Amino acid sequence: MEKVVIALGGNALQESDDNATAESQLAVIKKTAGYLGDLIEEGYDLVVAHGNGPQVGRILIQNEVAKDATPAMPLDVCGSMSQGMIGYHMQQAIGDELRSRGINRGVTSLVTQVVVNKEDKAFANPTKPIGPFYSQEEAERLRDEKGYSIVEDSGRGYRRVVASPVPERIVELDAVKALIDANQVVITVGGGGIPVVETANGTLEGAAAVIDKDLASERLAEDLDADILVILTAVERVAINFGKPDQREVDKATVAEMKQFAAEGHFPPGSMLPKVEAAIKFAESKPGRKTIIASLDKAREALRGESGTIVEV
Amino acid sequence: MEKVVIALGGNALQESDDNATAESQLAVIKKTAGYLGDLIEEGYDLVVAHGNGPQVGRILIQNEVAKDATPAMPLDVCGSMSQGMIGYHMQQAIGDELRSRGINRGVTSLVTQVVVNKEDKAFANPTKPIGPFYSQEEAERLRDEKGYSIVEDSGRGYRRVVASPVPERIVELDAVKALIDANQVVITVGGGGIPVVETANGTLEGAAAVIDKDLASERLAEDLDADILVILTAVERVAINFGKPDQREVDKATVAEMKQFAAEGHFPPGSMLPKVEAAIKFAESKPGRKTIIASLDKAREALRGESGTIVEV
Repeated sequence: MEKVVIALGGNALQESDDNATAESQLAVIKKTAGYLGDLIEEGYDLVVAHGNGPQVGRILIQNEVAKDATPAMPLDVCGSMSQGMIGYHMQQAIGDELRSRGINRGVTSLVTQVVVNKEDKAFANPTKPIGPFYSQEEAERLRDEKGYSIVEDSGRGYRRVVASPVPERIVELDAVKALIDANQVVITVGGGGIPVVETANGTLEGAAAVIDKDLASERLAEDLDADILVILTAVERVAINFGKPDQREVDKATVAEMKQFAAEGHFPPGSMLPKVEAAIKFAESKPGRKTIIASLDKAREALRGESGTIVEV
Repeated sequence: MEKVVIALGGNALQESDDNATAESQLAVIKKTAGYLGDLIEEGYDLVVAHGNGPQVGRILIQNEVAKDATPAMPLDVCGSMSQGMIGYHMQQAIGDELRSRGINRGVTSLVTQVVVNKEDKAFANPTKPIGPFYSQEEAERLRDEKGYSIVEDSGRGYRRVVASPVPERIVELDAVKALIDANQVVITVGGGGIPVVETANGTLEGAAAVIDKDLASERLAEDLDADILVILTAVERVAINFGKPDQREVDKATVAEMKQFAAEGHFPPGSMLPKVEAAIKFAESKPGRKTIIASLDKAREALRGESGTIVEV
C-alpha cells in the first residue's frame, strides 16, 4: 500500500472568508472528505495535513475583539484551537464518508507541535501577516506594548507580521506512526503545526510564528518515509509563463527542471513558490519519492498520473 | 503495569476564572504535569481525561462578543477548540516533565467525539448552564431566534442551559488503544468529549450538549479495561455529613455503602454526586476494578492507598 501524505489547501476547508459559519465550513469539508474517501478506497494509506490561515485568522479576531471580556490567547494557543476545530470537522466528515463506503477505519486528528529553531533567520525578518487589520494608532500601541512587528498592508490598514520559520521536527511523530500502523487515517500538522522552540533547559515553548503548511507536510512526508507527497491547490497543474500568451501547464517535471523554472521566477513567492519548493525538497530527499501538485477534485486522477504536476528526480 | 484513567478537574487546569491568561493556565498545567509525572514514574500506565467548563465558557464568550466581526461557532465546535487548547498545553507540559525525568514516552492529545443518544431524556430537560450571562431582552431574543433554553441564574442574569446526556460510545476509542499500545501517554475525552448523535443515515452530528467529564472518564475507563479510575477534585476525600459537626471523611467504601450515602443525600448534585456516581459505576462494572476520588496533589499517595476515597465492590 503506497503511503501518501496529502496537504489540503484553503479551498478544501472553506468556501470563502465571507461564508465562514460552522455549517458552511462543515459542508465544504464533507465534500473534501468525499475526494479523500476516493483515495482511501483506491487503497492509498493516507495521512492528511492541512492549512489553517483563514480559521486561525478568525480565532485571532475573536480573541482581539473580546479581549476586555476574557484574556486574548497568544498565537500558538490560537493555532491549537484551530487544530481542534478543523480536526473535529475533518475526522467527523472523513469518518462518515468511510462508514458510508463500508470501510472500517478510524480517523483521528492529533494536536501537533512542530519544533522550529529559535535562531532561524525568519525570526529576524517576520513576513507573514496574521489576524485583524489595525488603525495606525492601535498598531503603534501593539508594537510598543506587545512588541509586535507591524506592517502597512497595501492601503487596507496595519497588520501584525510574524516569522515563518522552517519546520525541523514534528514532536508527535511517534504517535502519528503508531496510528498509521494501527490502520488509522491520521490528520496532523494542522496549519503547519503549532510552532515551538526548544529552550535552554530542554522544554518546549510556543513561538509567535506560522509554519508554512506545505513545508510542514513535506517534513511529515519525509519523516514517515512516505512514497508520495500530494500538495493540493486551487489549480489543476503548475503553470509556467502564467498569465502570458505562452502559458504552459506542466504535467511532469524533473527536480532540475522545477528548480530552473523557480529560478526563472515563474512562481509567485506567496502562493505557488512554497508548494514548488516543498515538492522539490521531497522529490530529491530519497530515490523513488515523488511529489504531485494537483487540485482536490482531480486528486484521484493525479495519483493515476492523469492530472496534476508530477515532480521526480 | 496497572492501567489508570485519571480525570482532571478544573483546579488542575487553571488557577481561577479571574486569572485566565494563557501564561497562567500553562503555569497551572505545568504543576499538574509534575503530579502526573510522579504517577508515570511510579509505573502506572496513564490515560488522562479532563474537564473544560471554564475554558469552553470563555471561548463561547469570545464567539458571542465577536459575532458581528466573524460568525459565532456552535457549542460542539467551541468544545473542539477547547480540546485543542487544553490538549496542547497538557501535552507540551507533560512531555517536558517526562523528558526532564529521562522518561522516553510520547504524549498525545486526540480530538475526541463521544456519541450520545438523541433520545436521551436529558435533551428534554436541559440543566447545564453554559456561556455568558444575558440580559432578559437578549435572552428572549436568543430563545426565539436560536431556540436556546434559557434560565434565570440566581439573580445574576440569564443563561443558556443545555442537556447533559449520558456518554454511550467514544468514537476515537481504537486510536486511544493504539496509542496506549505504543506506550504513549494519551489525553482524550477533553471536556467529556465533543457530544455527537448518530443520524438516521449513520453519520455523526454535533449536539448542543455537555457531557459530564467524570461520566465520560468512567466510560473511557470501562472501554479501555482500566484497572483504576482516579477522579481528581479539590478535596482530599469524599465526606459524609459535610459541613456538620459529625462530618466524616471516607477513606474506603464499598459500592453498597456509597450508594447508601448517595441515597441519604450526602453529596451535592452539581459537584460531588456525579463523581460518586461515576465511581460506583466503574467499581461495579467488573470484578477487580476500583475507583479512587482524591486530590491532585495527593494522587500518588491515593494510588498507594494512603489518601483519597477508595470505592470497591
